[in-house]
Amino acid sequence: MQALMMDAPLTLDVLARRFEEVFPTRPIISRRNDRVVERSTWGEVGARARRLSAALAALGVQPGDRVATLAWNNRRHLEAYFGIPGCGGVLHTLNLRLHPRELEYIIGHAGDAVILVDECLLPLLDRVSPSIRDTRFVVMRETEAPLPPGALDYEELIASADGAQWTPPVLDERHPAAMCYTTGTTGAPKGVVYSHRSTVLHAMGMALPDCAGFSERDVCLPVVPMFHVNAWGFPFAAALVGSGFVLPGPHLDPVSLLDLFQSEGVTMAAGVPTILMGILGALDAEPTRWDLKRLDRLIVGGAAVPPAVVDGFQQRHGITVLHAWGMTETSPLGTIARLPPDLLNLPPEQQLALRTAQGRPAPLVELRIRGEHGVLEPDGRSMGELEIRGPWIASSYYNSVDGRDAFTEDGWLRTGDIATIDARRYVRIQDRAKDLVKSGGEWISSIALENALMGHAAIAEAAVIAIPHEKWGERPAAIVTLRSGATTSAADLRTYLTPLVARWWLPEHFVAVSSIPRTSTGKFKKLELRAQWADGSLAGTPL
Amino acid sequence: MQALMMDAPLTLDVLARRFEEVFPTRPIISRRNDRVVERSTWGEVGARARRLSAALAALGVQPGDRVATLAWNNRRHLEAYFGIPGCGGVLHTLNLRLHPRELEYIIGHAGDAVILVDECLLPLLDRVSPSIRDTRFVVMRETEAPLPPGALDYEELIASADGAQWTPPVLDERHPAAMCYTTGTTGAPKGVVYSHRSTVLHAMGMALPDCAGFSERDVCLPVVPMFHVNAWGFPFAAALVGSGFVLPGPHLDPVSLLDLFQSEGVTMAAGVPTILMGILGALDAEPTRWDLKRLDRLIVGGAAVPPAVVDGFQQRHGITVLHAWGMTETSPLGTIARLPPDLLNLPPEQQLALRTAQGRPAPLVELRIRGEHGVLEPDGRSMGELEIRGPWIASSYYNSVDGRDAFTEDGWLRTGDIATIDARRYVRIQDRAKDLVKSGGEWISSIALENALMGHAAIAEAAVIAIPHEKWGERPAAIVTLRSGATTSAADLRTYLTPLVARWWLPEHFVAVSSIPRTSTGKFKKLELRAQWADGSLAGTPL
Repeated sequence: MQALMMDAPLTLDVLARRFEEVFPTRPIISRRNDRVVERSTWGEVGARARRLSAALAALGVQPGDRVATLAWNNRRHLEAYFGIPGCGGVLHTLNLRLHPRELEYIIGHAGDAVILVDECLLPLLDRVSPSIRDTRFVVMRETEAPLPPGALDYEELIASADGAQWTPPVLDERHPAAMCYTTGTTGAPKGVVYSHRSTVLHAMGMALPDCAGFSERDVCLPVVPMFHVNAWGFPFAAALVGSGFVLPGPHLDPVSLLDLFQSEGVTMAAGVPTILMGILGALDAEPTRWDLKRLDRLIVGGAAVPPAVVDGFQQRHGITVLHAWGMTETSPLGTIARLPPDLLNLPPEQQLALRTAQGRPAPLVELRIRGEHGVLEPDGRSMGELEIRGPWIASSYYNSVDGRDAFTEDGWLRTGDIATIDARRYVRIQDRAKDLVKSGGEWISSIALENALMGHAAIAEAAVIAIPHEKWGERPAAIVTLRSGATTSAADLRTYLTPLVARWWLPEHFVAVSSIPRTSTGKFKKLELRAQWADGSLAGTPL
Repeated sequence: MQALMMDAPLTLDVLARRFEEVFPTRPIISRRNDRVVERSTWGEVGARARRLSAALAALGVQPGDRVATLAWNNRRHLEAYFGIPGCGGVLHTLNLRLHPRELEYIIGHAGDAVILVDECLLPLLDRVSPSIRDTRFVVMRETEAPLPPGALDYEELIASADGAQWTPPVLDERHPAAMCYTTGTTGAPKGVVYSHRSTVLHAMGMALPDCAGFSERDVCLPVVPMFHVNAWGFPFAAALVGSGFVLPGPHLDPVSLLDLFQSEGVTMAAGVPTILMGILGALDAEPTRWDLKRLDRLIVGGAAVPPAVVDGFQQRHGITVLHAWGMTETSPLGTIARLPPDLLNLPPEQQLALRTAQGRPAPLVELRIRGEHGVLEPDGRSMGELEIRGPWIASSYYNSVDGRDAFTEDGWLRTGDIATIDARRYVRIQDRAKDLVKSGGEWISSIALENALMGHAAIAEAAVIAIPHEKWGERPAAIVTLRSGATTSAADLRTYLTPLVARWWLPEHFVAVSSIPRTSTGKFKKLELRAQWADGSLAGTPL
């Protein structure tokens, strides 16, 4: 017996038809580099995206060709999110915070045929080697400044195309829709290639009430850049249900964001912890300046959120912070830390501990942890490498040999994170596998030590690294920055940590530095710190 | 270039693993025939469903074999929802309100290998011809009464199986998971066969905030029977997110339901308009008897909901009624009448008109209307046959020749409903195609006339049928039942209708009858009324 259901593919053109037909008037708000706020609609985005599809096809873009974007979060970037996959192209978002050498590598590795670039980012592209000048450039202009030689103007390009007359290609749902490169702390960047199917399924999962929860009544502002895992898939989730969408452009300081929250009636926003910390600081400084009664929730991910941020928003401003976890390889939604109903009666500090964990698996996603001897029980204590599978999880990297060991023989992705999973399926990431301190055959979580240290009044930032040790193999060392004017000592810090961590976890060394090096995505460069420690070049003061 | 995402199938075992692992303690409440309330959990449902899978495989059920259920909404029926597809079987829910002859036809047509039957429904099965006695019977007992000869006991069957040791088959997402027969007003019943993929996608769609909206914090009570389009897919949506689930068994009177709403903290329930009307009546009679502060929404479908019901729940009891439309062929979610945010400021009567329309298309579902000369514009006035497509819409009927004309050449399902679609994509069903009155080349909606008539104080029910007319081809006749003690006249009714409908729509005849014949799903048997009119056997009084 066969099932007798329609073979309707899960492709992005279904979403594009939907927002053009069902909620064409829902607002798209976009702030330019010169701070002018442009008002558009999903209907207009759809019509212009179709023109872009037609124009790219006329330029010679074939199904499967990569078309890159180098752009802030703005309305034209949103058009590209649908216009590029709409002609069968692969939306390749370039991270504008990368070093020009990294950009050159990624553009070359992906083989981008066309790059759509914000006018204000042309200086960055100029710093990329001339070797990529085979690529066509399309400039999304906001001023009357002249175009660089050989470049095309985005508005002229789409004005030249007739979206209504153009016939889109019929795409299989397994056709590639988008690609992003991981910006890891080690190794060459690796390309993850999303399908139409994975993108649509992820949008549906993200929109569910117990995940981010997208409704037509929401107005969503993704602070998370559209070049970070497709802004966590928020543009696609909003497109699925017709949420209003606010694109803040390049101005991401807390006041500029809070002004948009208020003026546009934003109900949900998303960003990394650093962004949220800035917003919280601005709100605490001027608690009555903004009317945020429509703001319901902030989704935070990309790094562990400090409990004080979650608590501060809730207690002082009545705003819920939802902590989620994922990676470029996971589209990114892997887990989210919503509280199940029977835990809503826990004491506040226990609730906070759960809400700052990575959370429980999203629908259709499965997680497990694996130790040296196989898959471990979800007992909340056993630490192992987190593995994940599901319909929006990567199965391999694009043209990569050294990425092959990221996948298990039975088809799960090895995340490189060391985690515990408890009986309620709360995942708690203890460390990156490569950052773990292996002391006397046991594991010490550098992140747990960092979090504990950052609760000390004198400490602004703390990075814990493994240093070689004759007897124990490795021991932890804490590299910290001090708050302005504050002082402390190793003895003071040991006393402070003693009730918080196991005695054998106490760092061997504490070193104060003026700043800790970070990657373009804000992660500590621990590999660099380890190298500096090893060759004695770490510029710091032992405490 | 290939997309590089995991090939993770959308199968029901993913949902079953999820509720066993992620929310095993979420409650399943089930009321037996003797009114005893049984308390179970999703974890227990999962473990028992796996035992059922293993036991069915041991009985010889092969992937693709049909396993039928003849049961009320109860916890064992829920186990069957996962246990039958879990072994590759096809869950075939039998409608216990059908005539034994219809049941016999459907069981034979589907070729059911096994039937799981509620003990209290054995008398119904006894009335089905002995010709189906090749089928194995498994009785879900609630008493100590002896088993019929040759029948198996459900509890013994699953106790005999070792779910943990059993290896489930690896299923493709296009493998059949379930089947339901349409119970139309004409023709032989036709079988719709759902795939695992369509069932999982429908569950995700149904769970979205702007559809029914399923959360782990919800407690859902489907009054809609589990033999009507899989209880509208609610068991699968609840399983996806871990909603509590309340199964009311055979006692569906308003007081019994309201008692469960209160005792179990039900947040959402679903049923046909008749059920909701009964509940509203009970609430109006005793407004303070039940504490329903947790009840947030009632989802209504299966027939057009009277505006007075939607308004009555909202105004007098603060409960939102959400009107949805679908069919057996559409899994069933086709449209839902949520109000978009910019229409929340409309005057109440205009909001009510939108909330009692069929609504706007669900995500991934596309709708259009077709007249005699092709697809019509969504202008809110043009009437045409509603056509639908999407990943959870049927593409054909099981072993059916006369069902073939229900599908267009370009792959849409013809619904048989005549509808308008307005610019906001609100669908309003005007009539069944076969019930339309074609007068002088124009269409008159029998449903619009019925709704208008049912607003008259003297009229309890109204069915409008087409009767032959020499000049106009057809003209409408209204068959009505009067409220107890009420009287009216044709002249009075014409005066009443005149401001409500076009003058040429006014019925030629008004006939009062003692009752209007209905199908097993509560629809008027208009074909029978037409036949009675034609042969003069309609037992009524001309008004």
